Order: sequence, then structure tokens, then C-alpha cells
Amino acid sequence: MSYSTDNIFAKILRAEAPAAKVYEDAKTLAFMDAMPQVPGHTLVIPKYPSEDLFGIPPDDLAATIKSVQLVGRAVRAAFESTGIMIAQLSGREAGQTVFHLHFHILPRHHGLELKFHAREFEDIAVLESHAQKIRDQLARQS
Amino acid sequence: MSYSTDNIFAKILRAEAPAAKVYEDAKTLAFMDAMPQVPGHTLVIPKYPSEDLFGIPPDDLAATIKSVQLVGRAVRAAFESTGIMIAQLSGREAGQTVFHLHFHILPRHHGLELKFHAREFEDIAVLESHAQKIRDQLARQS
Repeated sequence: MSYSTDNIFAKILRAEAPAAKVYEDAKTLAFMDAMPQVPGHTLVIPKYPSEDLFGIPPDDLAATIKSVQLVGRAVRAAFESTGIMIAQLSGREAGQTVFHLHFHILPRHHGLELKFHAREFEDIAVLESHAQKIRDQLARQS
Repeated sequence: MSYSTDNIFAKILRAEAPAAKVYEDAKTLAFMDAMPQVPGHTLVIPKYPSEDLFGIPPDDLAATIKSVQLVGRAVRAAFESTGIMIAQLSGREAGQTVFHLHFHILPRHHGLELKFHAREFEDIAVLESHAQKIRDQLARQS
């Protein structure tokens, strides 16, 4: 399978689709997952057009995980979560649905189950308020 | 919480505990999970003593994800898996049980469920044979 520029994250990178953005640098972008499995569910993607973990140059991958760490720390603070789960799904059989490499940041609290099956779109105003909380934490950290 | 040098991965790094190793470089080590959730379940850890994603210098983290990519590609080939799931759990509430930062590499096949709950130790001979398959792939890649 080869990279398709029609995927939704490619469109977000080209500003052809909306997203509640939380962080951007030269090589990466972070924004709220539009179908959150838990409040605060954030995605970090490389700007490099790679379908999965295996199509990206190591240095672009390194930049991506550094953004995961930076944004993950802010998500943890913004959502007062005691745990953070990072997930990266490469391949349809692993559960990948958008074929542009992305890392999930999932805040975890005791007793809060992930919505793995019933996925639905969250209201954009809710996503934007969550993005603002994370951006506030990033500003505080820097 | 601060890093404890008593954890099992620290002991593996000091060669005080056994592991079916698949890869090692200056900053990272990869070995088979002793309680695999699926055959081929491999762990990649930094040598840097960090409890979780947030205690490691970014450059050591970058080295770790590069090893995840390298070893993940070999795991995918060795286990003929169509999907690879990467998981990183930071904090007890996220499911972390060993408090040295680690990335899980989980090969996924259609219809093969992860054993998330019934965790048990795998036979060391099985783990070693799986490690050998992955080392063979790494040798082929390099």
C-alpha cells in the first residue's frame, strides 16, 4: 500500500479540513481526535507523508515522539490524569483507520474506561475547549 | 514517584536477570516480553533510567523510538503480521506494571485477540526461539 494524499490528516496538514490544534512545529502537528475514546484524546502526527511507522525516516520519527512527550506532559496536566497511554497502530489489522502515521495520547484515570467500540464524533466546541486547556499547559511549560 | 533500580528491566540491563534479547545498541535494548499478550510480543527500553515517558531526555527517547521502528519492522516480518501495535503505558492508572519506560511491540493478525487479562509467563525456550526469528530478520535488514 502506498501513501494516499486523500486521507483526513493530510487534509488537516493542508488546512483543507478543520482540527482543534494544540501544537505545531517544523516537523509535527498535534490536534484533538475528532472521535475521542476519552476526554483529552490527542493525536500527534509527522508532517512527513508516511502511511505507518515503517515509512518514515528515523529523524522525522524522532521529532514526532519528542512532540508526543511534550504534548503528552501537557495533556496529563490539563486533564489531571494519573496515567497516559500512547498507542500507535500500523496496519488495518492493528486497528489503523487513517493511513497517515499518528500517535494517540490517551489520558487515563482510575475506573475510566476507553470507548474502543462506540466511536462517535465529539462536538467541535468541546474539542476546542480541550485543545485550549492543553495549549495553556504547553505555554506554562515553555 | 522516583525511579527504583530494583525493577526487573533495570536488572535485565545489569545482566542480573535473564531475557531473550533481540537487539541492543548504545542507548537501547530490545527483548521478548516474558508474559506475552501475543506471540512475538517484544519490548524496547532505553538504557536511561526513566520511570516513564516523561522522565527521559528527548534524545534518549528519540533513540528508543528509532529502535522501536527497527525492531518492529523485524517483528512484523518474523511473525508475518499484517499489523503492528505500539503501546507505551505511563503510570499505574494506564496499566504500567514495571516502572522503567518501555514500548510494547505487538504483532497483530486478523482474528488474533490480545491476551490483556490472563497474563502468564511463557516458556523461556519459546521466547528464545521467537527472539531468534527476530534477530534473523534484523540481520537480513542490515
